Amino acid sequence: MEVASGTDQKEGMMNRGWGRFKAFPGKLKKLGKDDPRRIIHSLKVGLAITLVSLFYYFEPLYDGFGVSAMWAVLTVVVVFEFSVGATLSKGLNRGLATFLAGTLGFGAHHLAILSGEKGEPILLGLLVFLLASMMTFIRFFPRMKANYDYGLLVFILTFCLISVSGYRDDEVLEMAYQRVSTILLGGFTALLVCIFICPVWAGHDLHNLVANNIEQLAFFLEGFGLEYFKTSDSEDEESNKTLLEGYKSVLHSKQTEESLAIFARLEPFHGRFRFGHPWKQYLKIGSLTRKCAYRIEALHGYLDTENQTPQEIRSKIQEASTKVSSESIKALNELAMEIKTMTTPSAAILHITRSKIAAKNLKFMMNTELCKESDLLEVIPAVTMASLLADVVSCSEKIAESVHELASLAKFKNVKPEVAAQSKPSLRNAECVHEVASVDKFKSVKPEVATTKPSLRKMQSYSSISVPQSHYVITVE
Amino acid sequence: MEVASGTDQKEGMMNRGWGRFKAFPGKLKKLGKDDPRRIIHSLKVGLAITLVSLFYYFEPLYDGFGVSAMWAVLTVVVVFEFSVGATLSKGLNRGLATFLAGTLGFGAHHLAILSGEKGEPILLGLLVFLLASMMTFIRFFPRMKANYDYGLLVFILTFCLISVSGYRDDEVLEMAYQRVSTILLGGFTALLVCIFICPVWAGHDLHNLVANNIEQLAFFLEGFGLEYFKTSDSEDEESNKTLLEGYKSVLHSKQTEESLAIFARLEPFHGRFRFGHPWKQYLKIGSLTRKCAYRIEALHGYLDTENQTPQEIRSKIQEASTKVSSESIKALNELAMEIKTMTTPSAAILHITRSKIAAKNLKFMMNTELCKESDLLEVIPAVTMASLLADVVSCSEKIAESVHELASLAKFKNVKPEVAAQSKPSLRNAECVHEVASVDKFKSVKPEVATTKPSLRKMQSYSSISVPQSHYVITVE
Repeated sequence: MEVASGTDQKEGMMNRGWGRFKAFPGKLKKLGKDDPRRIIHSLKVGLAITLVSLFYYFEPLYDGFGVSAMWAVLTVVVVFEFSVGATLSKGLNRGLATFLAGTLGFGAHHLAILSGEKGEPILLGLLVFLLASMMTFIRFFPRMKANYDYGLLVFILTFCLISVSGYRDDEVLEMAYQRVSTILLGGFTALLVCIFICPVWAGHDLHNLVANNIEQLAFFLEGFGLEYFKTSDSEDEESNKTLLEGYKSVLHSKQTEESLAIFARLEPFHGRFRFGHPWKQYLKIGSLTRKCAYRIEALHGYLDTENQTPQEIRSKIQEASTKVSSESIKALNELAMEIKTMTTPSAAILHITRSKIAAKNLKFMMNTELCKESDLLEVIPAVTMASLLADVVSCSEKIAESVHELASLAKFKNVKPEVAAQSKPSLRNAECVHEVASVDKFKSVKPEVATTKPSLRKMQSYSSISVPQSHYVITVE
Repeated sequence: MEVASGTDQKEGMMNRGWGRFKAFPGKLKKLGKDDPRRIIHSLKVGLAITLVSLFYYFEPLYDGFGVSAMWAVLTVVVVFEFSVGATLSKGLNRGLATFLAGTLGFGAHHLAILSGEKGEPILLGLLVFLLASMMTFIRFFPRMKANYDYGLLVFILTFCLISVSGYRDDEVLEMAYQRVSTILLGGFTALLVCIFICPVWAGHDLHNLVANNIEQLAFFLEGFGLEYFKTSDSEDEESNKTLLEGYKSVLHSKQTEESLAIFARLEPFHGRFRFGHPWKQYLKIGSLTRKCAYRIEALHGYLDTENQTPQEIRSKIQEASTKVSSESIKALNELAMEIKTMTTPSAAILHITRSKIAAKNLKFMMNTELCKESDLLEVIPAVTMASLLADVVSCSEKIAESVHELASLAKFKNVKPEVAAQSKPSLRNAECVHEVASVDKFKSVKPEVATTKPSLRKMQSYSSISVPQSHYVITVE
């Protein structure tokens, strides 16, 4: 029996292994389909390496550099990253660190020679020990780690190699010169291929990531409305789940955003982004978006069966809640669109104002309708849900403020504020209106941009919640 | 005037620069004080590099390896990481990748020779292009990226270096052998220094991180109680703020936990952790802790002035809320202690049961007390706060379940379940009790461990909330 089960186990493992092997091409295909830039990047890396390896194949080139040509290949492999910013960051780190450490290593070598034949290895050993320890310690600084970790590593490496191998090879200067020049060559090859063949810009990615994250919040609210009030059929459940799960990526996007911002700062003028674009502001928007996502995570808990509210109570607040969420959805989508199209002002302010009014209406309605209920216990989950929804509205308002700040800092194109003018919210939104006014000074473009239609995806989303037209009418508080 | 302001600006910049320069030693000191292992690690790196550079200084050693000794220095610099697991991961990645790519590069070199003098560079170039592109693409697989990113990079590097330099140097086998042996040498030196001089274990760090994160939630609840009901004096505000902000690190701990778990899996038997310790379970606990932290983030919003509830309403729910949070604090602290001391069962189950009962009492009390209020609007923030507090309780229960699962998987030491026996919660906690029973089979240790006192820090924390003894008495639902 045992033998048989052992064979079964082996067979099971083999089957699993075969299954994985069979699934591999499919996974590869999906990986490329999800982001075709990955395929292009891989080919670019192959091309850059093949280019620098030409130094080996052609006699005249090889005679110039000799074995040092190896360093060019090494540099390309190590420096070539997915985005231009990351490649620039690694290249600059490597270049500067090699130069500085090379100079210092050369100095150390000369200092060691002065101390006599016996003293030389001792002094060299001591210097290497001290410098390596110091630099390793400095790598623990969070700011250094974020910006110059690779540079510090290369610094230690180069200093040790130059100063130590100088002990055996007296032509240190020649060696250092060859190494630095081949590293520069490798670095430049990587950079040129990276920039001039279908470049991937970290700044562009950050820009899109922040906008998409805001959109994810809107998607969740759509799915939440459908699920909480069970207005959708069972057929839509799969697509609904996709809407409901998307925000989870927002929760963990901090690190990605921060490194993209570091890379973006290094990138030259490209597309609609000039050098010195306010990348830090994206981090602020990202952080506020995450804060909103935390509220949404709490809201997500109210879809659990544990926290279910009786159907009759839910139906009482359905209209008012849907109003709040539909206005928030529109506001968030408008904000995402404002970032994507880089035009201002958007209709977001209008929808924020409406959602705030709707949230107040919801509270008011709860006060009048739900207080009649004898049992507060049954009402509590609904009240909490509504409160969290109101929290989401105030989070969206903060996101809107920081998006407007970005619009002003990055000089988004100004379009005729038709929609914004319609609303003229005199309530608490004075500050938003003020900000719209403050960006009025930017150059005006054809109003077509303002009417940029949301994508099909979003159009479907809009239509999936059937919000009556009356929802667009601002009621008096 | 302008010149003067320009000079002022310059002076300001210089002053700032000088200020930063002066602050630098202080920052260095703080960095070392926060975690003295950093200083030791830096010295260890210096030592390992100095050790491998001995190959250059001693004639007989140098004669054996020659210039290839450089690769030993390079390997130490690149492979030596803070924890044993990370060093092992990098070392294994580098070693295996070098070996595989070296073999493949050697094969490619021979294949190229067969294709004649003219065909050689073309075939080599093609092979390098194909392999580099393929491997770069594979690096995009999330699973590959997490585990073998460095290995794939080294694979590309070594394959290119061996196959391309083989074009000029016919002694490829000799070169490959020297390179692999020096890399092994460098890797072993790094590993030995890393393991035998004050080792830092990734597994140990993960273990502590997960326990500390649970503690951070408890700290927040303490601070929240003091702040929401303003029971503390203004003097304590600074320490209170520290209590309230600590949980924020929990929100972003996912990536750290995941990489620590990858490294921990590679580490050999050390301290109380055997090879094959259930590290994955820590990720589960970590994820539940983060989920709880998201609720706490929502709760944090209720300290804002916007969401303030009138004092008289707050004072009505003060006792019941304090009861819920104090029991949750104890439960969370007990769970953290259970992980830290690796003993089971803890009094956590008792406190979880009590906190659940207290949460029900709180809801019941809100129903009777707050429903009298004519204005539900004023009550809403308090109701939401209480609901979120109840959510935290149910999150804590889930954390407790997964900690018990860990205790069973990792075979935590079993101590006399004095406290647990007292409670015998017959309510919904049958599953917890069952789990305690299921770990009863583990070897018994002296009961002293069970009474391990919480640290001074925690004792202070306990005393900072004055919970009347009556809170420990379970009231009937």
